[in-house]
Amino acid sequence: MATSLAKKKTQKISSQELPERLAQARGDAELDMLITNVQMLDVITGETYPTAIAIGGEYIVGVGLEYLGSPTKRTYDGQGLFVTPGFIDGHLHIESSMMSPFEFEKATLPLGTTTAVCDPHEITNVLGAKGFEWFLRSSELMHQNLFVQMSSCVPALPGFETTGSDFPLEEMKKHKDHPSVLGLAEMMNFPGVIHANKEVLAKIEAFDDLNLDGHAPLLRGKALNAYLLAGIQNCHETVTIEEGREKLQKGMGLIIREGSVAKNLKTLAPLVNDFSSAQCLLCTDDRNPFEIAHEGHINFLIRELINKHTVPVHVAYRLATYSAAKHFGLKRLGLIAPGKKADLVLLSDLKQVRIQEVMIRGKFVSELSLKDHVQEKLKKSLPPLENTMKRAPLTAADLQYKLTAGGYNVIEIVPHEIITKHLTVRYDGQKFLENDVLYMANIERYGKGLPPGLGLVKGLGLKSGALASSVAHDSHNLMVIGTNAEDMALAANSLIDCGGGFVVVDQGKVQALVKLPIAGLLSLQSAEEIKTGIEDLKQAFRKLGVVLDEPFIQMAFLALPVIPTLKLTDRGLVDVTKFEFIPLYQEA
Amino acid sequence: MATSLAKKKTQKISSQELPERLAQARGDAELDMLITNVQMLDVITGETYPTAIAIGGEYIVGVGLEYLGSPTKRTYDGQGLFVTPGFIDGHLHIESSMMSPFEFEKATLPLGTTTAVCDPHEITNVLGAKGFEWFLRSSELMHQNLFVQMSSCVPALPGFETTGSDFPLEEMKKHKDHPSVLGLAEMMNFPGVIHANKEVLAKIEAFDDLNLDGHAPLLRGKALNAYLLAGIQNCHETVTIEEGREKLQKGMGLIIREGSVAKNLKTLAPLVNDFSSAQCLLCTDDRNPFEIAHEGHINFLIRELINKHTVPVHVAYRLATYSAAKHFGLKRLGLIAPGKKADLVLLSDLKQVRIQEVMIRGKFVSELSLKDHVQEKLKKSLPPLENTMKRAPLTAADLQYKLTAGGYNVIEIVPHEIITKHLTVRYDGQKFLENDVLYMANIERYGKGLPPGLGLVKGLGLKSGALASSVAHDSHNLMVIGTNAEDMALAANSLIDCGGGFVVVDQGKVQALVKLPIAGLLSLQSAEEIKTGIEDLKQAFRKLGVVLDEPFIQMAFLALPVIPTLKLTDRGLVDVTKFEFIPLYQEA
Repeated sequence: MATSLAKKKTQKISSQELPERLAQARGDAELDMLITNVQMLDVITGETYPTAIAIGGEYIVGVGLEYLGSPTKRTYDGQGLFVTPGFIDGHLHIESSMMSPFEFEKATLPLGTTTAVCDPHEITNVLGAKGFEWFLRSSELMHQNLFVQMSSCVPALPGFETTGSDFPLEEMKKHKDHPSVLGLAEMMNFPGVIHANKEVLAKIEAFDDLNLDGHAPLLRGKALNAYLLAGIQNCHETVTIEEGREKLQKGMGLIIREGSVAKNLKTLAPLVNDFSSAQCLLCTDDRNPFEIAHEGHINFLIRELINKHTVPVHVAYRLATYSAAKHFGLKRLGLIAPGKKADLVLLSDLKQVRIQEVMIRGKFVSELSLKDHVQEKLKKSLPPLENTMKRAPLTAADLQYKLTAGGYNVIEIVPHEIITKHLTVRYDGQKFLENDVLYMANIERYGKGLPPGLGLVKGLGLKSGALASSVAHDSHNLMVIGTNAEDMALAANSLIDCGGGFVVVDQGKVQALVKLPIAGLLSLQSAEEIKTGIEDLKQAFRKLGVVLDEPFIQMAFLALPVIPTLKLTDRGLVDVTKFEFIPLYQEA
Repeated sequence: MATSLAKKKTQKISSQELPERLAQARGDAELDMLITNVQMLDVITGETYPTAIAIGGEYIVGVGLEYLGSPTKRTYDGQGLFVTPGFIDGHLHIESSMMSPFEFEKATLPLGTTTAVCDPHEITNVLGAKGFEWFLRSSELMHQNLFVQMSSCVPALPGFETTGSDFPLEEMKKHKDHPSVLGLAEMMNFPGVIHANKEVLAKIEAFDDLNLDGHAPLLRGKALNAYLLAGIQNCHETVTIEEGREKLQKGMGLIIREGSVAKNLKTLAPLVNDFSSAQCLLCTDDRNPFEIAHEGHINFLIRELINKHTVPVHVAYRLATYSAAKHFGLKRLGLIAPGKKADLVLLSDLKQVRIQEVMIRGKFVSELSLKDHVQEKLKKSLPPLENTMKRAPLTAADLQYKLTAGGYNVIEIVPHEIITKHLTVRYDGQKFLENDVLYMANIERYGKGLPPGLGLVKGLGLKSGALASSVAHDSHNLMVIGTNAEDMALAANSLIDCGGGFVVVDQGKVQALVKLPIAGLLSLQSAEEIKTGIEDLKQAFRKLGVVLDEPFIQMAFLALPVIPTLKLTDRGLVDVTKFEFIPLYQEA
């Protein structure tokens, strides 16, 4: 079956509507709005020039000073503001913001993100199709153009972890025709593609008439060639400049990421110039509400590119607009041009990305009262509210380590990276011969009652107590790190009790708790409330000595067995360079 | 019904083939060919660097020095040659070459044109679906990637000329799923689009899930906005730099043309730079066999851009490759990268475009013996061979002008342009008060027996005799220009007699004749024979004083009522600025 991108939302003007829009474009019918007195940053030519923008319904019907004086229902005097197309986030997991899609929209649409290409694989790992379908339903209720890619690797690495649900190809195919689905979400199982795993190739075959998103950290040489041969078209996991150059040379779309943990802008910005800009785009991947509020979203990435990484203004904006739309085959997005959706950003300063107003499909965001509709839309979207923390309370004994003298495999956290290092640390029978080695458990939470996976981790700085999280990519079992089994058990049990979230425990007491009742991943609260909760958490974990800015986000990635180097799932330690389990105890 | 671009040829590797190609990419299976010792001009990054290209079947399975030493059935030592992707002609009418598609392939594939997006609207105007379908059948027998756009305006301007056939939407829809059809061919009826003509919008609606090619000479301002609003995505008819800039600014793909008559490279080259190159591509539109042989095809355009118009080398090649493939959504063409079709050009000099070898889908063109297969393929393609010159012989009396003193509307030819000027020239009762005013007739040839359309033309330089042609865009009635009615009748009758072609007549004798028996448009001969015939014609018309290089091609466009300013159809003079008939006699 061939499904066309043309069937997706934002792709066409209906034949019923077109004659009226043509009349507006010609000047024979009153416009719905005329934006005057603006300077357009043209992401095709790179020039900036005065223009006027004629709007009819959800569309830009015309661009140019020829519309000055045309009859219009409403005139918006831009008073010299700059105008650019709305920004496109090329890859993200909304779940990482802990917000519902409606709260996410409320937080990021005013920041200029008019389009987001999301992969709801976090919630799909927990709830399967029930989670995925909620995102589809939500996308239908949003102003923001939310595209929902088909989560391709649920579970991420079959056999290496216990998941709440799977999402098999038959289930995926049911949703292919949904107007929000643009293609296959990040194909993290790159070994499966490269080695022609039948199930993996069947997924590619099923979606290769749409987009095929990639995920290939550190992949190079022949293996990268094979991955691309299969039709994979982009990567947002590039961490070195040589790797980025090779990916561009091999025809891959380079999606440059700046998340809350994984930050690649600085490394990859030198690859971006006028010429290569056609093949580069931007994404946030995983960005928490704190950074969205304090730094921003795609607007922040543009600002950083221009001011910290000396990327020319027109190039930075192109990455966030036209290049992304072209990459995904979105014919009516990413440009301020006739026939495009009226998604645009008005700014007082292009370099500083000072946003004064955002328009989505012909409506000013400031006039949409997004805040007032979040709860109503959330209700309408029928969020899955079942308790997904299906685990009996633990005892300290469940988390007790029986250590004998010898060398142990230890995960070392790399600050601001989601890759980890693989250490071997000696235990002398009483203590580890390196400091800051903590106990870590990954506890299955999907009703199987399996014994926890036990590991060791270095780099957190925790001196006392424990942290626990029900967000642990991508299977989202219950992750606990601590200095002692009692606090670890309490932390785990607090989350089991409340349906999931983040918790800080010390000396037998809960110090701070953020509840995430939707799948143990998402909050029902507002961005502001979540932020306050996170600030409380931060205060609590800092008191306990934590040195990382985002220990919960970094913790969440310690479970992800598709990102190098050493990870811990509920089944045990995984050496991601070989995709093999390895024991905790390494040598005598 | 949504038809996906993904269903089109060149778009995917079959799932049966993929595992073997993956094994080759990984280095686990023998390659079919390894090209070593080449310098790749990278049209993504703009850099040039040494590489190796691994080929499996029709595909590039890998690119990079990592393949040196890999087991391979065949090694091609590039000996330091440069390599670029195969060239893409974004818009052309093969009929203008007078060659069959197989002869065209033989002539242009060795020049690096591995892909051509053609519109067979000349033959479709004459023969309707019978002509169009022959192109589809031919495309299936060719090595060159010939895409056949759905001729959208047959007839070009209903009511303004008599055509051999029409090509209604119902007929068009039948062929939409053919793997060679990429979309709607140039929508020349821009007034119809702009003014929301129902039939025109129905065609757009039917094909807007594929590509929508444009044609909008001199269109600007609100009218251009309206045209683009409908979804039209490109234009190859841009003749001024201001117009080109505006089209880019309004999001249109700028297809820069250098045909045999219409030459826009020089004018538009200043718009092309590193940044804008993503939105610019190249086409030949109408190029005769003489210029293909002497100057070249897309290779000539690249050479001119670099050497005459100071476009940087990497930019010029990008226009001819990656930009074109991206524009048309051709996922597996236009790059030298894993998973792309192995269409590439090996050159000893990038600036001079000195081609040493061309590869199409993994095969060297020099080894394809194209010449030996032309006749066999032509036969297999079942070309329509019926005589289409359905007209009884004319007499001089049919072409007699009854002129009285006064002002006459005269078409002035602009050398190397297909637009014309509209003159008013006084006749004093005996002669015209300007020199070089000639008689011109456009004679219906589709069996209706209608009286000829009579006109006057200036700018040819003919001093004696007459020229006639059965090629006269887009309806291809019989066009005759002469100094006297007797020679004009003989010229017309010679073509009626032989099934069409070009003829030069003087003093009651045929001086030179090229026969075009397929639809009165295409020859059954080889490119070399056609060239010889054209050289004979040239000698003959030069003797008679003709000052134009390509009088037959310019004549052919004097009939085309969708290109400004004044044109002559079989029904009479058309003022193309108003789309109105006007009389020959203007004023007393």
